[in-house]
Amino acid sequence: MPVALLTDFGTRDHYVGAMKGVILGINRKAVIVDVTHEIGPQDIGSAAFVLRACYREFPPATVFCCVVDPGVGSERRAIIAATNGQFFVGPDNGLFSFLYGNNCEITSIENDRFFRKPVSATFHGRDVFAPVAAHLSLGVPPNEFGPQIADPVTLSNIVPTRLDEKTLEGAVIHIDHFGNIVTNIASDGAQGQQLEIDIAGQTIKDVREQYAGAAAGQPFAIVGSSGLIEISLNGRSAAEFLHVAVGDPITVHLK
Amino acid sequence: MPVALLTDFGTRDHYVGAMKGVILGINRKAVIVDVTHEIGPQDIGSAAFVLRACYREFPPATVFCCVVDPGVGSERRAIIAATNGQFFVGPDNGLFSFLYGNNCEITSIENDRFFRKPVSATFHGRDVFAPVAAHLSLGVPPNEFGPQIADPVTLSNIVPTRLDEKTLEGAVIHIDHFGNIVTNIASDGAQGQQLEIDIAGQTIKDVREQYAGAAAGQPFAIVGSSGLIEISLNGRSAAEFLHVAVGDPITVHLK
Amino acid sequence: MPVALLTDFGTRDHYVGAMKGVILGINRKAVIVDVTHEIGPQDIGSAAFVLRACYREFPPATVFCCVVDPGVGSERRAIIAATNGQFFVGPDNGLFSFLYGNNCEITSIENDRFFRKPVSATFHGRDVFAPVAAHLSLGVPPNEFGPQIADPVTLSNIVPTRLDEKTLEGAVIHIDHFGNIVTNIASDGAQGQQLEIDIAGQTIKDVREQYAGAAAGQPFAIVGSSGLIEISLNGRSAAEFLHVAVGDPITVHLK
Repeated sequence: MPVALLTDFGTRDHYVGAMKGVILGINRKAVIVDVTHEIGPQDIGSAAFVLRACYREFPPATVFCCVVDPGVGSERRAIIAATNGQFFVGPDNGLFSFLYGNNCEITSIENDRFFRKPVSATFHGRDVFAPVAAHLSLGVPPNEFGPQIADPVTLSNIVPTRLDEKTLEGAVIHIDHFGNIVTNIASDGAQGQQLEIDIAGQTIKDVREQYAGAAAGQPFAIVGSSGLIEISLNGRSAAEFLHVAVGDPITVHLK
Repeated sequence: MPVALLTDFGTRDHYVGAMKGVILGINRKAVIVDVTHEIGPQDIGSAAFVLRACYREFPPATVFCCVVDPGVGSERRAIIAATNGQFFVGPDNGLFSFLYGNNCEITSIENDRFFRKPVSATFHGRDVFAPVAAHLSLGVPPNEFGPQIADPVTLSNIVPTRLDEKTLEGAVIHIDHFGNIVTNIASDGAQGQQLEIDIAGQTIKDVREQYAGAAAGQPFAIVGSSGLIEISLNGRSAAEFLHVAVGDPITVHLK
Repeated sequence: MPVALLTDFGTRDHYVGAMKGVILGINRKAVIVDVTHEIGPQDIGSAAFVLRACYREFPPATVFCCVVDPGVGSERRAIIAATNGQFFVGPDNGLFSFLYGNNCEITSIENDRFFRKPVSATFHGRDVFAPVAAHLSLGVPPNEFGPQIADPVTLSNIVPTRLDEKTLEGAVIHIDHFGNIVTNIASDGAQGQQLEIDIAGQTIKDVREQYAGAAAGQPFAIVGSSGLIEISLNGRSAAEFLHVAVGDPITVHLK
C-alpha cells in the first residue's frame, strides 16, 4: 500500500530518512511516496492546501503521513482521519480540516503499543506518525489506535467570507514553485461569472483559461489545477511581482 | 516497471504528488523513480541534457514521464518517443530530440480514453502525461494512444556548429549543482586532441582527466560523466567564478 | 531489499537519476529510498551525522549507498562497511567511521567485475558505488568485492575532547533545515547534569526538554532526536541568530 509523506522537514537532514526507515522496518512492502518535504516551516495552511490539491489522485487505502507540527512535545493530540478508504495521520492542528464533515472519522492516537520507544519530545514524525502510518498500511484498523473524537481542530481560512451577494473576502493560502498565487476562492463559487480581484493594491480583471497567450508583465487570474483561483504572470513569479505573501487578504467582486 | 519522473515542478507543491497519485491509481505496481523536479522553470534544454545523461542507465521498459511544458494549454502536441524498449512521454517541444533518428518511433497522443478527466488547461502532467505513462507501464502499446508522426519538434543547440576544421562553436547547455559548466561539445568530437576553450572572455587551456590535483582558482576542462566537455573549478562553482549562464556561447579550438 | 541513497549531488542533475537507473538495471526489485541528496558539497562530517542519526531505523539487509566523495578519481579506496546485517557502501574517507569498532567488517572494493564500464574519473557514484550496492542488495556477500581491511580512514571530530572532569570541548557538526545547531556532544555524556554551553561568544544556560514553551528570541539547548545536544530557537534559525557554522567550536561546562 502507498504511504505518502508530506512534511516541512526539508531534505537535508535525517528526519525524512528516519521516517522511511521506521516505515520499512514495520512494513517492508510499503510503497513510500514523497509528496513534499518542502512545506514552509510550520506552515499548516500551505500543507493543508498541498494535501487537499492531490489526495484525491491516490488510490484507496493510501496512508498519508503528514508532519507539520509546531506543537510537537506539547499536549496537542495525534490523529487519524479516515475517509473514502484513505487514511491521514498527523497532529491535530487543522492540517486535515478540509476533510471534516465529509463522512470522515477521526481517531485520537493514544495506544502507545504502536509507537517507537522511547518517544522523543521533538520528533513525533519518527516516533508516532511513521509507525502508526506503517501499521495502518498493514491493515490495522483505526479503532485499535484509540477512541474516535468529534472535536478536531479546524483551520479558519479554508473558505472565504461572503461579505455580500457580490463580494467575497478571501486570502492567499499558498505560493507555488512558479510564483503562482493560490487563493482560497473555489472556482465554482465564481463559475460562469465575471469577476475582479483586488490584491496588493491592484485590481486583476483579466480572467484567463490558459497560460499561453497572456500579455507579458500583466498578472491575470486563472482557475488552477486544484480548482482554486490563482493569480499568475507569464514567465515570472506573480508573487514577487505583486509582493504578495501567504496570508495576505484578497477581495473578489462578482460582476 | 519503473516510471521515471523528470519535471520543472519543484517539490514544494502538489504537482509531483498528484502525478504520483495518478500513476499509482492506474498501476499500483509502478515503481516510481524521481529523476529530478528541479529543472529550471521551462528550461527545455537543461531537461533534455539531464535526461540524455542518464536514460541509458535505466532498464528496458522504463517509462520516462517528462514535463517541462511552457506550451501547456496551447496546441502543442503530446508525444510518446519509443526507442530501445524504453518509452518517453511528454510535450512535443524538443525535450526528446536527442533520441530522434535513432530507431525512434514517435506517437502523437490523441486518444483521450487514457486521460484523467476533465483535462485542465494548466496541468497536463497530471491529466495527460502521468496517466499515459502509467498505461504504458502496464504494457499498453504506443499505437493505442494515437498515430505515428514524422515531424517532431527538435532543439537547435543539441550539437555544436563546426566553423572550420579546427574550430567548433558551441553553447553552455546546463549548470550543475556543483557549478560545473556543461557544454554541448561531445568528448569524441575532440578526443585525443589538444584543445583550448574560449568562454566568458577567458581561454581555458588546462584539460584534465580528474578533479583531484587541479590548481586552486584555476578553471579547467574535463570530460564529464555524461560524455560532454565541462568547465570545472575545484572547491567552488565555475559558473559563478566565470559568470556563465545556460545559453552562453563557447568556442573550441582544436590544436 | 531497501537501497538507501545519501549524497551531496543535489537533485537538479542527472547524477541521482543515473544511480537509480544503474541500481534498477541490476536489481529490478530494489526498493530505492532517498535519504538525502542535499548534503553540503563534500561535507563528509554532515553526511556522517545524517547517516548516524537514521541508519538504525532501517531494517536489516538495508544497503546504504553513500556518495560524498571529494577524492573521486584519486587513489582513495572504495569500501563496504558491514554491521548488524546492514551494508554501507562509499568512499573510504571517514563517512562510516562512527560504525567502526562495533563488530564492523570493512571490505576494500577492488573486484571491477561489479563495476559499470568504463569507470569514469568523475562519477564513481554511478560506476562503482551504485552497482556494488545493487549487487549487495541481490545478496552477493562483501568478500566477493575484495579483501577485508583494518585501517579505514576515520573522522576526528566524532566525539568531543574532555578537557577536565567538568569541561568538554566539542564542535558544531551539522546545521539542520530549521537552523537547529547540532553538536557532537552526546546527551548521555551529560545526562542528569546541569550544564552550560559556550557558543559563538554566548553562554546558553537554558536546557529544555521540548520546543514548546521556550521564550521568544532566547536560544536554548535540547537533546535532539539523534541523541546529540542541539542549540535551538523557537520560530527561527538558531544558526543564523548566533552566526554559527559547521565546524565552529563549543565548550560544555558540567555543573
